[in-house]
Amino acid sequence: MLPTKKRIGILGGGQLGKMLIEASRPWNINNTILEADLNCPAALVADKVILGNLYDADKIREIASEVDVLTYEIEHVNTDVLLALEAEGLEIIPSPRILQIIQDKGLQKQFFEKNSIPSAQFKLVAKNDEFVACMHHFTGEKVVLKFRTGGYDGKGVLIVKKEDLIQGKVIIDQPCLIEQYHENIVEYAVIVARGKDGESVSFPSIEMYFNPITNLVEFLFSPTRMDEKLDQECRKIAMAAIEAFNGPGLFAVELFVDQGGEVLVNEIAPRPHNSGHHTIEGCYTSQFEQLNRILLGFPLGSTQLIQPAAMLNLVGPENFTGEYVLTNTEDLLAMEGVYIHLYNKNVIKPNRKMGHITILAETLDEVFLKAEKVRKWLTFKSV
Amino acid sequence: MLPTKKRIGILGGGQLGKMLIEASRPWNINNTILEADLNCPAALVADKVILGNLYDADKIREIASEVDVLTYEIEHVNTDVLLALEAEGLEIIPSPRILQIIQDKGLQKQFFEKNSIPSAQFKLVAKNDEFVACMHHFTGEKVVLKFRTGGYDGKGVLIVKKEDLIQGKVIIDQPCLIEQYHENIVEYAVIVARGKDGESVSFPSIEMYFNPITNLVEFLFSPTRMDEKLDQECRKIAMAAIEAFNGPGLFAVELFVDQGGEVLVNEIAPRPHNSGHHTIEGCYTSQFEQLNRILLGFPLGSTQLIQPAAMLNLVGPENFTGEYVLTNTEDLLAMEGVYIHLYNKNVIKPNRKMGHITILAETLDEVFLKAEKVRKWLTFKSV
Repeated sequence: MLPTKKRIGILGGGQLGKMLIEASRPWNINNTILEADLNCPAALVADKVILGNLYDADKIREIASEVDVLTYEIEHVNTDVLLALEAEGLEIIPSPRILQIIQDKGLQKQFFEKNSIPSAQFKLVAKNDEFVACMHHFTGEKVVLKFRTGGYDGKGVLIVKKEDLIQGKVIIDQPCLIEQYHENIVEYAVIVARGKDGESVSFPSIEMYFNPITNLVEFLFSPTRMDEKLDQECRKIAMAAIEAFNGPGLFAVELFVDQGGEVLVNEIAPRPHNSGHHTIEGCYTSQFEQLNRILLGFPLGSTQLIQPAAMLNLVGPENFTGEYVLTNTEDLLAMEGVYIHLYNKNVIKPNRKMGHITILAETLDEVFLKAEKVRKWLTFKSV
Repeated sequence: MLPTKKRIGILGGGQLGKMLIEASRPWNINNTILEADLNCPAALVADKVILGNLYDADKIREIASEVDVLTYEIEHVNTDVLLALEAEGLEIIPSPRILQIIQDKGLQKQFFEKNSIPSAQFKLVAKNDEFVACMHHFTGEKVVLKFRTGGYDGKGVLIVKKEDLIQGKVIIDQPCLIEQYHENIVEYAVIVARGKDGESVSFPSIEMYFNPITNLVEFLFSPTRMDEKLDQECRKIAMAAIEAFNGPGLFAVELFVDQGGEVLVNEIAPRPHNSGHHTIEGCYTSQFEQLNRILLGFPLGSTQLIQPAAMLNLVGPENFTGEYVLTNTEDLLAMEGVYIHLYNKNVIKPNRKMGHITILAETLDEVFLKAEKVRKWLTFKSV
């Protein structure tokens, strides 16, 4: 029922928190964030910022005492205190029980295995000599090596030659996960939302567009170019994975589809995700509004795409750190269906996510043409 | 060029200011408002609120000193100090020179006449005995009587019988405008945006849907049911009216079309307008983003409708004042393409605008069906 006086607390004050708060503005929701950096993206829009570390139990208890429901926009938080708070009756979405599984990629893989969620073959290893013992489980020359905890935005993930592991050329000093490497996979993602009443919906699948020359991801788009049957299979598997967690929240399910059309779950994020940013303009309900609905106990919104959409990240280039401007933004702003989102980060750093661009058009081909232009025009310049 | 450090100042802190600020959030614009009421809608989202009356020259000078460009979300402000500030070099959009004309409906009518903008026949009157002298200018039994200044949301506008005026049954104590009354007109509106470079664009026309039984406006929608030629004529006349003002800004042009298909300009608002709220979800660029673009010197955005859209106002009913909730909001939130905007007003009063609903669908017929449901379901209840 609206208006509501329900207050939302968010652990973390990054761009996901910022966009979550922006999406709540038409409903005038009170938002408090816990974040160590007062210059964080979400501070601009939050009603209150509590300064503190996301592993500081006292600070988490402080924000918990001021809100009616708590969520997080990053996995790297103190789960122990969240489990205690949940036991004491605080509503935390998604449940820290789910977060605990997702935080440890080893537990996550075991969870998939136990719940028959298709995922790449894996072995958990803690010491170097365990590599050799498990290598016969994997086919091909390469395997994927992942740190079980602490990875973020592709950090903590390596593709390595089995031979190099066997010969001791790669040394690990923390619990890892070895995964079967799949050649020529296509990457998809599906955002799944589950309400407090147990109802679940999936957003249309997202495909990653790789530059055929550099083989780097240039943008994400939706709808995908998959055939209808495979698309449905992806959404079905993503929904099944979230069903297995059996709790409310908004989740991003990263998927691989191999050349034979087999769908594998890669990883799950228990929060809004970079692969869902296009939903702000592209879908009837954005991933951020959807999470607000879940937090507030409102019905889930329609996830339908209104138009084909693409999303490009604005990522700090290798060559500089400091104050910056984006060049050619006026050309972009003059294009129909092009939306610039900046994350309010004063300083650019290599690989830092500074913002994103959403592109809408009536057809996917038009979306690609616009995205190609945007990608060529946009550059960062130091000031 | 983005990011920009340009600061925007807004005179007034109502819902128009709130939505203007919300639209600037992806660009992280700093917004300061001047408003007498700290509990105003825009205070929730503004970076800074200066408490003060909109006729207080000192307070207007205070906000002016803290921003790079100044706008207003209500016409009832001190124009003298704005003219002085503009002369001193402050950028004020739209220019107070334009506001001065619009503030006085008499000057506005004379401006239309001088610039050959079609508009209903009129006479300016100050005293009661002037009525009789001008009555022969008007045909039919009724005329429209408007206060020249101070009207808002339909206040200060009366439809009266000529005979009652002649016989002294209606007494006026302030300068008024008598206008020809037109029977069976259809009301349209066109939002026109003009950039600093002199480029102008119009949004698709908006039609008002009247309940055939009660004859009250139930919702506004776009595209209209006008034939293409008449629609183009409306947009052309609206553009011509704004061209005549010859300055940047976002303007709402209210139009009448009579039974013979003649288009008349009724009134112009030099700010975002109730008849453009559907553009938030319905158009590539909303009226609020468009005004931000103008204020920041960015290119104008595409005004194309993405889907047919309707907008219903949530207006306080006659029967109560106080704290309130909206009933059946959960049913509305479950409908695809239905968006609830609340204006953060704690107390409901008769006829107070509390919020609005936007409705999108693939066809206008579907929009009407949904709007009909929304209108029936939504009610205010005291708490």
